[in-house]
This record gives sequence, structure tokens and C-alpha cells, in this order.
Amino acid sequence: MPKRFWEDFIEGSLAEYGPRAVTREEIMAFAAEFDPQPMHLDEHAARASMLGGLAASGWHTCVLVNRLLADGLMNEAHAMGAPGVDEVKWLKPVRPGDRLTIHAKVLEKRASRSRPEMGFVNFHFEVRTQAAETVMTLRCPLMVARRSPPHREAPKQTEP
Amino acid sequence: MPKRFWEDFIEGSLAEYGPRAVTREEIMAFAAEFDPQPMHLDEHAARASMLGGLAASGWHTCVLVNRLLADGLMNEAHAMGAPGVDEVKWLKPVRPGDRLTIHAKVLEKRASRSRPEMGFVNFHFEVRTQAAETVMTLRCPLMVARRSPPHREAPKQTEP
Repeated sequence: MPKRFWEDFIEGSLAEYGPRAVTREEIMAFAAEFDPQPMHLDEHAARASMLGGLAASGWHTCVLVNRLLADGLMNEAHAMGAPGVDEVKWLKPVRPGDRLTIHAKVLEKRASRSRPEMGFVNFHFEVRTQAAETVMTLRCPLMVARRSPPHREAPKQTEP
Repeated sequence: MPKRFWEDFIEGSLAEYGPRAVTREEIMAFAAEFDPQPMHLDEHAARASMLGGLAASGWHTCVLVNRLLADGLMNEAHAMGAPGVDEVKWLKPVRPGDRLTIHAKVLEKRASRSRPEMGFVNFHFEVRTQAAETVMTLRCPLMVARRSPPHREAPKQTEP
């Protein structure tokens, strides 16, 4: 399969990535390194928290999702990075043993005004468990190279 | 120091967290696990990319920032998690050897309508390097327990 260019992304199109199972060990290892709060590190403390039991750091879910997208989306396209993230919502806890699937939709795309060699593709991602519960949503743009950058107009000559 | 409650956060107040140095080894290790794109994994490929050299995954910067905030902010307060992230902007590449400092500002706070035992504190974080360049900004809310939850009014008795 040739890699996709910006022109190949269609507004409204859907795709699915995953599943990816999440283990108790990796939840605790990620939290120990990047989010050492009791509800992500310790079953007993987690039961007393509003999460009601051990759950992954929301940032852990983000980076697991990013891994699935890097493999299935970014590295299958002429991706050029991203300027940021528009919004993340952590809706329900991700538990040890959950299997995450990403449901992706292309919201819209637009050419770059300042960089004619690329364009933006705005995605909405819904992350669901094996029980079809939505645990997280993510809106973010991706920068993708264009197959045929428009020619810049040559500067007009002024009348002598 | 006693842990801070929601009442102790003041709109407009400033704080600083860090610094935290970022190594080449951890940039590549994080990317291998969570963001395996060439510009985060390989110096040669990175030089050919729009980043112009090896740079940390934007998600890596997010979770390094979260670690500093967990240590300095969340675990020093009666923090109860977060509902999501309002916005992330990746403005410049984070390079091996960069030392990151977080400049935090409380934008606003509000009580929770549905959960009187807590409130929201909305933060803006600016992540700067040793050269005072802003590499990332982050807007996100934090949920914090209240010291004195307001009493719910008892239901009014109707006239007999």
C-alpha cells in the first residue's frame, strides 16, 4: 500500500485501530514514572478514590492511543507531526484487562496557508472498551504532506 | 505543609515547577514505546524532517510535565483527578539536553454543581526551556476537594 497524502483523506470517513489490551503491570509502571498519584499506583488507595479501583492515568490512555495511531495512521501516511491537541475528555476509568479500540473520524481538512507543501486533517477519536463503553475522546489535527502542492503564483510584473 | 483544598487556590496566582532535564536516551525510549515515528527515533531521519533534528514526542513532553505537576501540585493538594485537557500547543521542538520549567497560572475556579464536595481549578501551563523559549502550552482543569462543602438545603416542607 502506498502511503497516503493529504489529498487521500476524505471528510467524514471512518476507520478503526486496535484493539490494545492494558495490563495492571503497565498501568502501575506508567504511573510510577509519569503520574505517581495513589489512584493509579495502589489498589487500596484507588478503591477509596472517586475512581473506585485501580485505573490507568488519563495520560497513559492518551499515549497508548497515540501508539495505535502511529502504527496504523501516521506511519501509513506522509505525516508531518501535529501542532497540538484540541481537546481530550476522560469519560470513564480504564481498568486492568480492558481492551481499547479507537474509532476515528475525519472531521475536516484544510490546506495550510503558510506552507503549501502540506495540509491539516482534523480527527475525532473515540476510545472504546471491549464492552463498547467510551472511555475517552480526543480531537486533534494532523499535518500531512500534499501529493501536488499548488504552484505559487509568480509575482505580477508592474507596468513600467 | 498541610495539603491544599479548593478554597486555597487563588485566581491569577502563579507558581513554577521543575526544572527537569530531558535526555536523548529517554526521548528515544519513550518514542519506541508510544510514538514510533522516525523524527523521534532516529537522528538521521529527524534531520530530514520538519523538526530539523531529534526531538521529543509532544506526548512525551506532556507526560514529563504531568510528572512535575503530580509531584509539585496534585500530590500537594487534595486533588481528585481531571476530566480532561482543554488544549495543548506544541510550539517548538524539545531537544536532548533541554531543561524544562513549568510556569503555572490559575485562570479561574468554580464549584461543582453536581458534586458539592469538590470544585474545579483551571490552569494554564507554559513550558519553557533553559533558554526561556516556550516549547509547549497546556490548558487543563483539576478537580480538588473542598474544605467546607456547602450544606445542601433540606427539602422544604409543603403546607399540609
